Amino acid sequence: MRDYINLDYKPRRREVLACYHITGGKASIKEIANNLAGESSIDTWTDIKTLSPGIFKKLKPNVYYLKNNYVKIAYHPELFEKGNMSQILSSLAGNVFGLKMVGNLRLIDIKFPREIIKSFDGPRYGVEGIRKLTKVRDRPFVGAIIKPKLGLNAKQHAGVAYEAWVGGCDTVKDDENLTSMKFNKFKKRVDVTLKAREKAEKETGEVKLYMPNVTAETLEMLKRAEYVSNNGGNYVMIDVLTSGFAAVHTLRKNIRLPIHAHRAMHAALTKSERIGITMPMLSKIFRMIGVDTLHIGTAMVGKMGVSISETVYSEREIESRKTKKQDHLFEQEWYNTRRVLAVASGGLQPCSIGKVIDRMGKDVVCNFGGGIHAHPWGTRAGSTAVRQALDAYLNKVPLKEYAKTRNELAKAIETWGLV
Amino acid sequence: MRDYINLDYKPRRREVLACYHITGGKASIKEIANNLAGESSIDTWTDIKTLSPGIFKKLKPNVYYLKNNYVKIAYHPELFEKGNMSQILSSLAGNVFGLKMVGNLRLIDIKFPREIIKSFDGPRYGVEGIRKLTKVRDRPFVGAIIKPKLGLNAKQHAGVAYEAWVGGCDTVKDDENLTSMKFNKFKKRVDVTLKAREKAEKETGEVKLYMPNVTAETLEMLKRAEYVSNNGGNYVMIDVLTSGFAAVHTLRKNIRLPIHAHRAMHAALTKSERIGITMPMLSKIFRMIGVDTLHIGTAMVGKMGVSISETVYSEREIESRKTKKQDHLFEQEWYNTRRVLAVASGGLQPCSIGKVIDRMGKDVVCNFGGGIHAHPWGTRAGSTAVRQALDAYLNKVPLKEYAKTRNELAKAIETWGLV
Repeated sequence: MRDYINLDYKPRRREVLACYHITGGKASIKEIANNLAGESSIDTWTDIKTLSPGIFKKLKPNVYYLKNNYVKIAYHPELFEKGNMSQILSSLAGNVFGLKMVGNLRLIDIKFPREIIKSFDGPRYGVEGIRKLTKVRDRPFVGAIIKPKLGLNAKQHAGVAYEAWVGGCDTVKDDENLTSMKFNKFKKRVDVTLKAREKAEKETGEVKLYMPNVTAETLEMLKRAEYVSNNGGNYVMIDVLTSGFAAVHTLRKNIRLPIHAHRAMHAALTKSERIGITMPMLSKIFRMIGVDTLHIGTAMVGKMGVSISETVYSEREIESRKTKKQDHLFEQEWYNTRRVLAVASGGLQPCSIGKVIDRMGKDVVCNFGGGIHAHPWGTRAGSTAVRQALDAYLNKVPLKEYAKTRNELAKAIETWGLV
Repeated sequence: MRDYINLDYKPRRREVLACYHITGGKASIKEIANNLAGESSIDTWTDIKTLSPGIFKKLKPNVYYLKNNYVKIAYHPELFEKGNMSQILSSLAGNVFGLKMVGNLRLIDIKFPREIIKSFDGPRYGVEGIRKLTKVRDRPFVGAIIKPKLGLNAKQHAGVAYEAWVGGCDTVKDDENLTSMKFNKFKKRVDVTLKAREKAEKETGEVKLYMPNVTAETLEMLKRAEYVSNNGGNYVMIDVLTSGFAAVHTLRKNIRLPIHAHRAMHAALTKSERIGITMPMLSKIFRMIGVDTLHIGTAMVGKMGVSISETVYSEREIESRKTKKQDHLFEQEWYNTRRVLAVASGGLQPCSIGKVIDRMGKDVVCNFGGGIHAHPWGTRAGSTAVRQALDAYLNKVPLKEYAKTRNELAKAIETWGLV
């Protein structure tokens, strides 16, 4: 392996920068960093004859930062195929994790230059597009995840969705493992749930969104998404990690509806502090590819997650016009890429909503599953309680006081308690 | 959350079984196991009204094993969509990793019943198909990865490939981060490398395989694979994890060429002993979807990996007609699904080959990058040294003795030493 350590190096504006954290390796951090730089670009473990001085000079990476187990490397942009996220990850998040010498490796962040950011479409709608579509201008959104995750037939599913919408929810989504099941086929579910949506819209005078889960083999996924599109649907949802980066990109390129991204499986990559990829980095990737709403956790209010900053930092990656430096995450200029609307989800109940908005801001969809469907009076009351809790927060009235004249909220407080 | 602990339960033949390993959680293992079972199927954190007794009775999972931090759960098959690997993973390898309560979670294995195994195509060629295609009946294959990973133009790439083939390699593959680069466009590379292959086949009288890397957004990937197919190519390669499960499935369904699977990024999921998914489990998934060759490491001979058993167990998942129980990995009946040919790759050199075959058997492709292109006399000599080392092994002659009349091998021994 040649020498890529160059601590005096000043990265250039058009280069790609990566930040890694290394622990437990079988060599010095310097040697590990050097191998990391070579393996993620042009080199290998022994001195290959086919790597000419010309190629080396032009494409060699530079390790320009090496401190407290953090390593930062600058890469020539031609090492990456524009608009090909899988290739970018195969380079910077590929073999490097598996090297014996490296020990534990965590990819903290990648900073992309203009030409790579611009080579992806970004969200078709984004925060502003979703607000325009729904005419919900200046409050957080509230949504329901249909529960049980699996087991309802299509008609029952539509019935629960209807209750959630008329109770006050803006959005209804399928759960991550509900696709086309023996007891609940995709097309039938879409048909009846879209009818329920239409009815709920008429009755409430509000725009309602339905996010059917199109997760499947890519061409089947496109067929399902087209079915939604052709039958009056206004949204699709995909499990972005179990489908994969290439499939999400295919959905973005071929379907004109907004895309909701569910992150099932992300924690297999993000949860360890020492191995894998950070959630803010994954968030950045999905913004580039172009989802419109992204599940990023609840900032520790609900049942999932490892830290408040994981959610907050992820949100800044997707909702900032220019992301500022945060710990070891790079600043990132977004060059007019639209902003993704954050989705808080996982173990929320009506009384959680204020704390979520305090931590995540108003550009957020607060999603509820159990927190709606386990309301003692049922889904509609649960949904109403959520909307009441939101109104209380926006009007700066304490929940208990607001609940004096609102039975659904009072019952929710009685059931789950204040947060 | 309802109660799913049922240690007297005997799993049924048509159920799906999952084995998890749990550490560091915030509750008892029993409580964690119970939440894991609910979250991966039909339930959530609070007592939802929409989960009827009928649904519960029919679809409830059963935690039937709970010992030494290992948890085994049996699931009703209707909880899974046949032929939809992304849905299966969203259930069993989805939200569960992210639950606060769970701590560290590792998915060890999933056992699939007949109807799910049969709902996937499996390899189109597999071990027997590749042997028939190449007429290489009873020896391991040897292959070259073109190096440097990036930097060669198309013509140079084809030149290096030619040298590798005429030197003795059966296969030549692109590296994982080489797709369609500014300095080496995909179509041009395929054109000239296929010409080089034709020349090498004529000169050697052997069948030679070229595995161009089609990794990209799914429809672009298909276009590239079709280009290979329409221009006389005999193989395609894809980075299975950075592309994603849905894209791999799409490639399998739509292209009639054999598929090589490069596992870049796998270690972000597999390397931790406490979090993520095991490599044998991933290997099983890619056999079901249907790749023909799969990179599974070198059983610790080369530069990558965490243990010999990781590779050996993975190999048994992909090459057995019926996989036997191995530690906490389930036995798996394959119902005529073809066997995937194992690929050993990462830091091998000519003298490694015997040790690799000792550990991985004869149904293997031994791939060399640096171990060929860093031979002091160049790629052709490196390739010849590899083939000589293979012949020595097959003829049971010690390498040093065999090298007395074979200069390329002697030079390789001088360069890297015996293993």
